[in-house]
Amino acid sequence: MDRLVVVAGTTKTANVAGITAAGASRAARTRTPSIDAELCVYGEPVSASRLPTSPGGTPTPALVTRAATTAADVPVSVVDAGLGAPTVAPVIPTDGSTGGDVRTAKPVPDADRIVERCRTIGRRLPGDRLVIGETIPGGTTTALGVLAALGEPELVSSSLPDNPVETKRELVETGLAASDLGRGDCAGDPVAAVRCLGDPVLAGVYGLTVGARAAGRDVLLGGGTQLATVAAMLAHAGQRPPPVATTPFVARDESADIERLTTAVGTELRVTEPGFGEDHPATSGYLAGEAKEGVGMGGALAAAAEAGVAPATVRDRTIRLYDRLVERPADQQS
Amino acid sequence: MDRLVVVAGTTKTANVAGITAAGASRAARTRTPSIDAELCVYGEPVSASRLPTSPGGTPTPALVTRAATTAADVPVSVVDAGLGAPTVAPVIPTDGSTGGDVRTAKPVPDADRIVERCRTIGRRLPGDRLVIGETIPGGTTTALGVLAALGEPELVSSSLPDNPVETKRELVETGLAASDLGRGDCAGDPVAAVRCLGDPVLAGVYGLTVGARAAGRDVLLGGGTQLATVAAMLAHAGQRPPPVATTPFVARDESADIERLTTAVGTELRVTEPGFGEDHPATSGYLAGEAKEGVGMGGALAAAAEAGVAPATVRDRTIRLYDRLVERPADQQS
Repeated sequence: MDRLVVVAGTTKTANVAGITAAGASRAARTRTPSIDAELCVYGEPVSASRLPTSPGGTPTPALVTRAATTAADVPVSVVDAGLGAPTVAPVIPTDGSTGGDVRTAKPVPDADRIVERCRTIGRRLPGDRLVIGETIPGGTTTALGVLAALGEPELVSSSLPDNPVETKRELVETGLAASDLGRGDCAGDPVAAVRCLGDPVLAGVYGLTVGARAAGRDVLLGGGTQLATVAAMLAHAGQRPPPVATTPFVARDESADIERLTTAVGTELRVTEPGFGEDHPATSGYLAGEAKEGVGMGGALAAAAEAGVAPATVRDRTIRLYDRLVERPADQQS
Repeated sequence: MDRLVVVAGTTKTANVAGITAAGASRAARTRTPSIDAELCVYGEPVSASRLPTSPGGTPTPALVTRAATTAADVPVSVVDAGLGAPTVAPVIPTDGSTGGDVRTAKPVPDADRIVERCRTIGRRLPGDRLVIGETIPGGTTTALGVLAALGEPELVSSSLPDNPVETKRELVETGLAASDLGRGDCAGDPVAAVRCLGDPVLAGVYGLTVGARAAGRDVLLGGGTQLATVAAMLAHAGQRPPPVATTPFVARDESADIERLTTAVGTELRVTEPGFGEDHPATSGYLAGEAKEGVGMGGALAAAAEAGVAPATVRDRTIRLYDRLVERPADQQS
C-alpha cells in the first residue's frame, strides 16, 4: 500500500518579493501550507475563503494531489515541519519551528531535531511505500542554498513562469557568507547544509526517507528540484537516493534542468503526464509554466498511474474539485 | 455525514496513584492518549510495542472505536488538547498545554485559548454531525472538580471496577481550596470552572461543541460522565446541551448514576449495547467493570448503530483487531 506524506512548513525566505508563486501576498504565502494540508485531507480549504493561487490565478497543486490520491485510494498524511499559520487539518507533529531567512546564519537551528523526529515517523508510519512531497513557499531558494553548500549543481525550478534565478543566487550568496561557508563546505554533512542554508521541510523529507528505508519501506520522492535536493542530501549521507517523480512542467523547465541534477546525484527521474489542457483555469496555468509542481503532485500522479488510474480521470477530478470549490456558497466560506 | 472527533490530552492529576485504569504505569498513562490517537487513525499502536491496557489487562476502548468507525465508515479526527508524549498520528493542533494537577490553583491556565481555538475548529471541521469523545487518563477526577465548581451533582464514573470516589473527592476538595473556591462558585462560568478544577480536554470538547453548533452542525457527546460534565458546562453557558451517548458499562455504574447527572443538566442519555461477552479478553473486562468507556466509544457505538451496523459486527471487528495486534510479529512492534 502506498501512503502519500506531505511535509508542510514555512521559511521566512518566502517574504522576499518575487521568488515564489505559492500565494499572492505575504500573508497568503504564510497560510498556503496550512490550507494545502486541509485540501489534501478534507478536499476543501476549511480555514480560508479562497483557494491558494499564484499571482496569475493558478490554483495550488494540492487540488491535483487530492484528485489523484482520492482516485487511486491512496491515504494522505501531513507532517507539520514548522507551519506558520493555524490549520484545521490533522498533522503529524514534529515540534519543528518555522524556518528563518536563508540570508541569516542558521535558518534551521533545530534541523537535527526535525530529522530525528521524522526518522522515527518514517519508521513507524504504516504503508509499504511512502510517496513524500512538500509544501513550503520559497522552498526552491532554500533548496538552491543546500545544493550550493553541498557543492552540487545549482539548478532549481520555480513556481513562477520566469524563474528569478538571479535573485535566488544573490540570496544564497548572502546566506553562504552569513554562515561563513564556501561552496561544497557541507559536502558529506547534509544536515549541516540544511541547518545553514535550508528549510525545515528539507530536514523533514530527509528524515522521513531515512526512517522509512531503515524500516524496509520503499520511498518515492514526489516533487521537483526540492525533492531532487533531498536526493542529493541522501547521496551525501552515503545512501542511494530513491527515484524522484515529478511533473512534465518541472521536467520541461530549462532554467532548472532537473534531469542534470538527478543524474549528478545518481538517481532516476520519473515524469507523469497529467494531460492538462488550455481549456480550464484549473489546468491552463500549468501549460504557461505557473506552479508546475508541489504538494506531492508529481508523486501523486505517479502513484495514481501505477494504480491504473487514467490521466484523464485525475484531470477531470481536478477540474470538478476546482469548480466545486470556486462556486461554493459564501456561507460555507469561513 | 458523521465525523467522530476525539479530543486527546493529559492532566498531571493522573499521576495520583489508583485513580485511573487508563495505563498500567505512570509513564504508560502519559502515553495512552498518544497511542489511542494512533489506534483511531491507523488501527495500530505504531509508537508502542503493546496496546494500552488497564492494570487488569482490559485493552483501551480505542479498539472498539476503531472497529465501530471503520464498520460504519465514519471518519475520525483527533484534536491535540495537550498531549504529553509524541504521537505519529495526525492531530489537529490547538497549542494547548498539558493539564496541571487538580490540587493546584489553576491547572488549565490556557483554558480560554483552547476553548477559542476549538470553537474555530468545531465551526470549520467538515461533517453534518460531530460525535465528540475524549481520551485523558484521570479525566473523571477533573470532571468531578468541574461539577463541584459549577455546583452540579458530583457524580462521576471510573475506568476501575471499584470507583475510588473518596480519593477523587479529597483531590477536588484540595483543588477547591487551592483555587479559593466554594461549591458552585463558578456557576454560569464554565470556562472558569475548567481553568480552576478541570483539564484541557474538557475545554476542547466544550469549544468544539459551541463552534460546531454555531455553524449549524449537530453534536453528539460520545462518552461517560466526562462528556456529561461538558453537557453541564453548556447548560451553564445558557445552551441546551446535546445528547450524551454512552456505554451500558457506564450507565450501569451505580457509583456514578450518569442518568441523574444528565437529567439534572437537562439532556438525554443514549445507551448502545455492544453485546460484549465473557469469552474473549478484548471484551470480558468490560463485563467486570473495567475501562467502561472512553475514546468516544459510546458515541462510535451509537453512530454505528444508527448507520445500521449490527452490534455483533462491531464486537467481532473489535476481537479481530485485538487478536491481530496482540499477535503481530515482534519486528512490527517498534
